[in-house]
Order: sequence, then C-alpha cells, then structure tokens
Amino acid sequence: MNMKLMTPGPTPLPPQVVDAMGRQVLHHRTKEYGEAFDKLCKGLKYVFAADYPVITFTASGTGGMEAAVVNCFSPGDRVLLISTGVFGDRFADICLSMGLDVDKMDVAWGKAVQPEEVKSRLRNGVKGVILTHNETSTGVKNDIAAVGEALKGMDILYVVDAVSSLGGMEVRPEEWNIDVVVTSSQKALMCPPGLTFLCVSPRAVEAAKRNKGSFRHYWDFRKALDFMDRELPETPFTPAVNLVMASSQAIGLIMKEGIERVWERHSRMAEMTREGVKAMGLHLFAEEGSASETLTAIQVPEGIKAGDIRKHMEQRHGIIIAGGNKSLKGKIIRIAHMGYIFEEDVLDALNALEDALISYGYGLEKGRAWETARQVWDRRREKI
Amino acid sequence: MNMKLMTPGPTPLPPQVVDAMGRQVLHHRTKEYGEAFDKLCKGLKYVFAADYPVITFTASGTGGMEAAVVNCFSPGDRVLLISTGVFGDRFADICLSMGLDVDKMDVAWGKAVQPEEVKSRLRNGVKGVILTHNETSTGVKNDIAAVGEALKGMDILYVVDAVSSLGGMEVRPEEWNIDVVVTSSQKALMCPPGLTFLCVSPRAVEAAKRNKGSFRHYWDFRKALDFMDRELPETPFTPAVNLVMASSQAIGLIMKEGIERVWERHSRMAEMTREGVKAMGLHLFAEEGSASETLTAIQVPEGIKAGDIRKHMEQRHGIIIAGGNKSLKGKIIRIAHMGYIFEEDVLDALNALEDALISYGYGLEKGRAWETARQVWDRRREKI
Repeated sequence: MNMKLMTPGPTPLPPQVVDAMGRQVLHHRTKEYGEAFDKLCKGLKYVFAADYPVITFTASGTGGMEAAVVNCFSPGDRVLLISTGVFGDRFADICLSMGLDVDKMDVAWGKAVQPEEVKSRLRNGVKGVILTHNETSTGVKNDIAAVGEALKGMDILYVVDAVSSLGGMEVRPEEWNIDVVVTSSQKALMCPPGLTFLCVSPRAVEAAKRNKGSFRHYWDFRKALDFMDRELPETPFTPAVNLVMASSQAIGLIMKEGIERVWERHSRMAEMTREGVKAMGLHLFAEEGSASETLTAIQVPEGIKAGDIRKHMEQRHGIIIAGGNKSLKGKIIRIAHMGYIFEEDVLDALNALEDALISYGYGLEKGRAWETARQVWDRRREKI
Repeated sequence: MNMKLMTPGPTPLPPQVVDAMGRQVLHHRTKEYGEAFDKLCKGLKYVFAADYPVITFTASGTGGMEAAVVNCFSPGDRVLLISTGVFGDRFADICLSMGLDVDKMDVAWGKAVQPEEVKSRLRNGVKGVILTHNETSTGVKNDIAAVGEALKGMDILYVVDAVSSLGGMEVRPEEWNIDVVVTSSQKALMCPPGLTFLCVSPRAVEAAKRNKGSFRHYWDFRKALDFMDRELPETPFTPAVNLVMASSQAIGLIMKEGIERVWERHSRMAEMTREGVKAMGLHLFAEEGSASETLTAIQVPEGIKAGDIRKHMEQRHGIIIAGGNKSLKGKIIRIAHMGYIFEEDVLDALNALEDALISYGYGLEKGRAWETARQVWDRRREKI
C-alpha cells in the first residue's frame, strides 16, 4: 500500500520533485546550478507575493526562525511574542535562547489572538512583534494582516512564522506590513525538508545591517544578500544542492497552477474537511472563524483513543495523520491538507476517519461526511 | 560527456546514494526513518573512529563550525585560533562573530603549524584551541595528533575542523585528545551536501551543559543529544530526511570497504597525484611532508593561465577541478581526490592535466606523469 502523508510536514513530494532530487550532485558554483537557484529565488518571490528578496538557508524552519531573530534583534532587545500554541512557544524559546527580553502573550489554545489586544499590550521600547500565522498544534490561523495594520507607522519590526501556511494560505508581506516572513520547504511548498526561506522587507534588511550587538554568522542576512546579488545568485556556504534542484521544480509547479488558485484549493480542502468532520458529529478544536486552511484539528470523541484512530487510518487506508502535541496529546487528531494534496485525498481521509470511528463503535451514518465534503467541492468548484 | 567532480566538495555520489535520495519523503517520526537514522548515527561513530556520539545538523559544514563554537564557548571566552589558510580564516570569522576573544595565529600559506609553537603561544585563560585538519585552500594537512598530545592534561577544549578530511584521512578523536571534530557530508564521506556531523567528547558535552553565557538554540548539543537518546534516535527539528536516507547508504559503503582501507586509498591517490604532477615538472604548493591526502594543490607554471587549464580539463575531458581562493587565485589549481574517487580517476585527471599543459605550449613528455602514478599504484597495491 502506498502511504499518504497528511501530516503537517513533511508532505508528499510530486514525482517531478523526487526526480529532480535523485540526480548526481552538481557543483554549487556552476552555471547549471546557478540557473536552478535563480529560478528558485524568482519563484519564491512570486510565491511570497512580495517584491522583497527571499533568502534560502540549508536548515529546518526552526533555523529560519532563529535567523529572523538574530538579524532583527540583539540580546537585551524587548519583543512582544504572541503564542497561540506549541510553535508560538517554540519561537519564545528561540527568543529567550538568543537573550531577548521577551514579553510573552499567551492566547488560549484553540483561539486566535485579537489584533486590538496586541496593540494595547505594546509597551515602550518594544522593538519587535512576533506572531505565528498558522499554529500547527491547534489548527488556528491568526489574522496577521490585521496585526500588521495595527502596527503601521510604528518603529517595530513585525516577524511572522508562516512555516505551515506559506504556499497554502494567503500571505502578502508588503500590503500587510510584515518585515520577515519565515517558512520551510516541507509543508505547503511541496519541497523536501532541509531548506528554510525568509522573505525580508527593506526595513528588516536595514535593521540587519545596523545591528551591531547580535552574534550571527551562518544566519547572517548581510552575507546571504551579498551572495544573492550576483549575475546568478549564490549562497555563502555550500547549499543542499539536490534539495535546491528539487525545490526549484516544486515552486515551478506552484507557479504553473497560480498562487491564488493554490490558496483557493487549500481553502476549499479545508472547508471540505471541516464540513465532513462536522457531518460525523465531531467537533473542531479551533474556534469558529479562525480555522486554518492547511490543517484541521479535530477533537477526539469520548471513549475513543486518538492513537487507535491514527493506527486504523494508517494500517487500513495508508493515510498518515498527526496526533496532538503536549497537553493536547490524546485529545485531538490533526489532518493536514497542504502541499501536494488534492480534494480526492481529503475525501479519502474522511472516508478513512469514518471507517476508523465506526470500527471503534462510534455511531455515525456511513458516507455522510464524504457526501457533505463532495458537495462543498462541487459548490466551490463552480466558483472558479 | 559525464562530468566528474574532482573539486573539494561536493564530490560525486555513488549510484546507491543517489537512488536512496531520490525517493518519496518519509515522515521523520516513523520507524523506517528512525532505523535509517540509527544506522547513520552508528556508522558515523565507526567512521569518526571514536566511542563518542556524533550529532547531525541540517546545515553546511560552516554551520557545524558555528555549532562547535556556541556550545563550547561563550562571548568573551579566549581561544587560540590557528589559521593555515582560507578555512582557518573562516573559523576565525565565526569565532569573532560569536563574540569570542580570538588570539589568531597565522601560519604562512602552504605550511603546516608546528605543534611546539602552539604550546608556546598558549596564554593564561585560554579556553580553547581551534585548528583546521586539512586546509582545503592550500592542500596542507596539520598534525592534529601532535597538537592534541601537546594539549594533554590542560583544561583546554580542542576543536578540529575536519570538513575536508574526515573519511579520507585518519582522525582518532579519543587517542588524539580532540573534543569536537566537525565535518560535513559532501566531501570525503560521499554524501550529498546539506548535513554537518560533529563528534563530541564527554568533556565537550560537559562544557555544553555547563555553558551558561552562550546564545544557542538550533545548534544546541543538549537538545540534539536528548533526542538521540531514544529507542531510535531522532532530531529536535525536522531533518533533511532524504539527505539522511542517502547518507546512511554512503556511510554503509564506507563501512563495507573498511575505514582503514578507505584512508589507505586516499593516501595512495594523493601519492599518485603528487608523483604524477612532479613528473610533469610542476611544483606542489604544500610544503614537503605536509601534503593533504584528499586534495593536491599545484602551482601553475609561468605563462599559463589557471583558468585555461581548468577549462580545457572540463571541456575536453569532463573533469572539474578547482582553482585558487583569495590571494592564490590564478596561482594554483587544486585536484581533489576524495570520496567516491578511485585510482583510475586520478590517472584520468593526470592525463587531462598533461593534455591541457601541452595544448598551452608547456613542454613535457606525454605519458610520463601517468606512468609514474601507475607505478605508485602498483607499488602500493602490493602492500595490502
């Protein structure tokens, strides 16, 4: 049985991407590699929907988050860190590890931050606001546009963790006043894991250049931008050549589909999942109106074990989904619908989930979720 | 024409390694991935020839060097940094970027450091000594064993950059008193670029645990070791799954050949290259007795352009070699004989170099270099 990854990263790779990765390695100072990297850099600008440079580092998304911190801030700098779950907490850890003075604003898990609360929380001397776009642990999306609007005109750098949203959910760094958007390769972008991408505003670049107190070398934006500013872009240090070749293919596929159509596909798959799940009588974990478009978190019904549902879906249907993290372990299951995942996959996942629930004695009308989701698909298909 | 990379990284990948890389991505918390990573971790212990843990980070070798610095030292700590070329200078840059108090000892390019000079240079309060094993820019190897011997009994952490040596040249961290050995995947280890490996002594682990003043998150040894200490080893953050799968294959090939035989093959290829080059009347750049076993730097004869030689070898023979860095640009060419490179490749490279020189009017007896190298091979083949 072919296994299908409906986890929040890594996500399945398109065959063209696998093919581009599985080639003999090229030297990273050759024209052939340079052209592929150039194509990737240009494609990323398109996908990030901003006329800002996008920096590539060989690292996980966590490394990219660290890169944002050490370029924008120095030890002792005060930042407002809004956490809506596990990945907000991780960003707080990174800031603390880098010696920042962190004002951590904890939002109840399952809820999104209220933009007006961000503004009222700001104290004198705050140099940055850091927010997770899509909180992978709870399936909640934060309104990064409204927060950006609230920060307009202030001398505050606004950093957004878009690791599990970018490519699957609308992000507009210029219009939304965002200075650094961080993402990683292996989520909605259909690239293999191992690269992190950072879209940096002129203000962030300026801050990185002015920053005298920070300790950075590998993550240094200045070096990265210098090497990008060549006839064909390069990286200061040996990149993961094969991952760049593969990512260049993947981003090409997104460009071909069109980023707005890709966002729409993710939004459609998310609605299909939510309506299907509700048709089973299950409850979503995210509050109404703040549900993510790349991942749906579902409360596990009383008397059934999350692990049993996941095992059943994996062993009987070849669909791998995720459980809950930290305090949500055992309480929720999470179905990712991001990247190289399509409406048919969502229908398969709903069918597998129904089957799992029935086999553990949960009463539901077989096929109703599937049918509900199919109707959403039909309705939204017509809109295009 | 198939191109052959005889550059100091990336180096050619064995077909099994390419094949393992070019597969659908696995989730990094699955048993199948865990088993491959476990095989890699165990194989690396064998290749590093020490009963010390080997930490894997998704990053280039430069990232690994930074990881060594931020775990062993804190801003303000004094280290003795010995530079014998471009990569020694880079390590100095990293230390300075991380806020260390760097006593930089510059050795003339082309020469190795004298171990007794290291000892006499040590000042009170020095917490670390940092040395490049194989200086890729000059083709010089430093006697890391003798320096380790000189540091025995002292409360000094000894960090070695073995990026372009490990797997191709003997390194024995335990016997040689080395606390951190850093290498990267894409050199002698026949793995794709994108991973860095650090072999850490109990003393280095202790220092990382005690270190209170350092700013680190992504590179934190403590987190990495915690995650390795599971039934099947893991990493704290999403790893470059496909690169790990590929590297696990590559390290398996080294284990099959046997590390001592691999070292011997590199030493044999280096002698073949040196003797062949000398038979052409050319001069080596590294001083007698300190020539690297993974890379040979050759002085370009008067009146011939380094770029022309390289272009000829690439276009006519499909062999890509390197030029000189920084002040050595145009003055030397560098032939790497590391990783998935064999004696036949060295003969091909010598033949191509002869051909290039002749075509640019350099007088030499065609075939003599090739024959000289073949004789070295014959003689050393008998020894095994």
